Amino acid sequence: MRELTIDDIDDLALGATLLGTGGGGDPYVGKLLVKQAIADHGPAKVVDAEDLPGDGWVLTTAIIGAPTVILEKIPAGTEFRAGIRALAAYLGEEPVALMPIEVGGVNTLVPIATAVEMGIPIVDADGMRRAFPQVEMTVFTLHGLLAAPMSIADEKGNMCVFEATTNQTAEALARAAILQLGLANAISCYPMTVADVRRAGISGSMTYCTEVGRRLARVKQGADGAWQELLTFTDAALVFSGKVIDIDRRTTEGFARGTVVLEHLEDSSRTMRVEIQNENLIAFEDGDAVVTVPDLLCLLDYESADPITTEGLAYGQRLNVLAMPCAPEWHREGMLELVGPRAFGYDIDYVDFRESRR
Amino acid sequence: MRELTIDDIDDLALGATLLGTGGGGDPYVGKLLVKQAIADHGPAKVVDAEDLPGDGWVLTTAIIGAPTVILEKIPAGTEFRAGIRALAAYLGEEPVALMPIEVGGVNTLVPIATAVEMGIPIVDADGMRRAFPQVEMTVFTLHGLLAAPMSIADEKGNMCVFEATTNQTAEALARAAILQLGLANAISCYPMTVADVRRAGISGSMTYCTEVGRRLARVKQGADGAWQELLTFTDAALVFSGKVIDIDRRTTEGFARGTVVLEHLEDSSRTMRVEIQNENLIAFEDGDAVVTVPDLLCLLDYESADPITTEGLAYGQRLNVLAMPCAPEWHREGMLELVGPRAFGYDIDYVDFRESRR
Repeated sequence: MRELTIDDIDDLALGATLLGTGGGGDPYVGKLLVKQAIADHGPAKVVDAEDLPGDGWVLTTAIIGAPTVILEKIPAGTEFRAGIRALAAYLGEEPVALMPIEVGGVNTLVPIATAVEMGIPIVDADGMRRAFPQVEMTVFTLHGLLAAPMSIADEKGNMCVFEATTNQTAEALARAAILQLGLANAISCYPMTVADVRRAGISGSMTYCTEVGRRLARVKQGADGAWQELLTFTDAALVFSGKVIDIDRRTTEGFARGTVVLEHLEDSSRTMRVEIQNENLIAFEDGDAVVTVPDLLCLLDYESADPITTEGLAYGQRLNVLAMPCAPEWHREGMLELVGPRAFGYDIDYVDFRESRR
Repeated sequence: MRELTIDDIDDLALGATLLGTGGGGDPYVGKLLVKQAIADHGPAKVVDAEDLPGDGWVLTTAIIGAPTVILEKIPAGTEFRAGIRALAAYLGEEPVALMPIEVGGVNTLVPIATAVEMGIPIVDADGMRRAFPQVEMTVFTLHGLLAAPMSIADEKGNMCVFEATTNQTAEALARAAILQLGLANAISCYPMTVADVRRAGISGSMTYCTEVGRRLARVKQGADGAWQELLTFTDAALVFSGKVIDIDRRTTEGFARGTVVLEHLEDSSRTMRVEIQNENLIAFEDGDAVVTVPDLLCLLDYESADPITTEGLAYGQRLNVLAMPCAPEWHREGMLELVGPRAFGYDIDYVDFRESRR
């Protein structure tokens, strides 16, 4: 068991925002929620699944919606516990710990704040080690675990519990509900035992995230060799440096979708187009896909190295584009069907950015 | 306590289909379900709320969807019990009886079949004494009773339980869910105690429905004076006799919407337009509203006197148009806001068909 203090939160949030690949929500409100929870109740307790009883239940909590909406519809804070309580009551099981479902700005921080408030530990694991826009897009699905029963709650007292026979149906029901509840709500899905977390979860993702954040903080401070150290630690590549010359946003079917076009800072004949569905999905350079899901596509401010969330993208920004391989736990049968380009409606094959750059 | 045998079902179904004002679903499959249930388990037990313990729980079941879809997506039968069981488990209460939520072809019959299968009585009451397309459109809403917690179930094992702070939100959540589950599903809403049924329900609506059906059956047999007897018993007026010269259907936002135009059989200069949202809502004659919700607008075959459900309307049909006052229980504060023309998006005032004909 490790303790997470207010001093650790900034690195964790920075790492989570980078690994969120533009999604998972702006971390600002999440940091406030965690810092307040720690100030009120003491440090967060981070545990490994190995430290918990195998038959104990682990529940998750996150914000589901469109990041453009999440930015403006600030969580009340009460909806996360309401959703967890509803699901726990439905299951007839009290959780021994919470777990983030994904790594992403606010969606890493909210479960920590909620665990602190509930007086239970947070498991150092998740289901993506990045952020993805749809409920079914987790390594848990590849292990045959069900997203349902799950709950959706809002801040007004509206609440849904869903059973679904497939995780795709779970996503469809959740998306339909949040479209009625303001497009920024609390979801608690993939209830599972500690044994399931050990078997199917991505262990150590919170620690990894903090380590990434620590290295990115050194880049931001301008420390010598910090940029190379970040690239080496994350196995990442800098694939483009450009200025935003076009940006198109649309909120459709419960997602924030968009297209961003960058013009290369040194060679104006080169352009990169980034396609967005809550998260950055695919980068095309001059028409060819160069980075594709499930690999991570991260946009950072060219000067400050701040990771830019999709809702924060703006015309004229100068950005570095980083590609990063997805967590090794994704490499299982069915990965590309679940989270490859075609799962998002793009009729292209997966491209390994490390191959395409050789 | 009265028993309902297979012999009573035809009158009940006939009355329910007439009072369903085009909605509530074609009764054919519902009759088969009830007759099979009675053959398997014995007669249905019909009780008044006064005969049950006041603190007992009464649950409802119905098909929710678009009648055009319900006609083709035949219920499995299992989804009704699944939805009731889910809601009962959520409430932690077993029902002492079931109740239809509305009067309408299949939606009067399905709760009877389900009650017979569950071995519990059916209460002689409902929340509309007609059919309406939206969950919040009940006299229960006018009494401040909540539609939620409620459940939606399909035949595959998908299931939703909703809490909603308003009945309008309950409708929005239910509609969003059924759009994902095939647009013909089982709903169990307005769980209430027997005391609430006594206070807020429309008592005797099943008996009324059977009496109406009995009289309509005599009309269909061509019995002397039967037509006038039906009009007198229901306080109805024959407002138009015409031939369908135009019909437009669209399935939008989870509803079967449509417009039907009739040309008068004896005076081709007169036309009537009927606007449909699952049910027949409003009749306009030469542009003026002559029958409006919440009054009943019933279309019957000109020759056979069969009530025609909205999904059964077809070009060239010759129809009698009957207007009938809604149940007196509707006349409470808020009625027109909840079920008047504006509640359906028509910018017109309620018209009393009895006044407009004087």
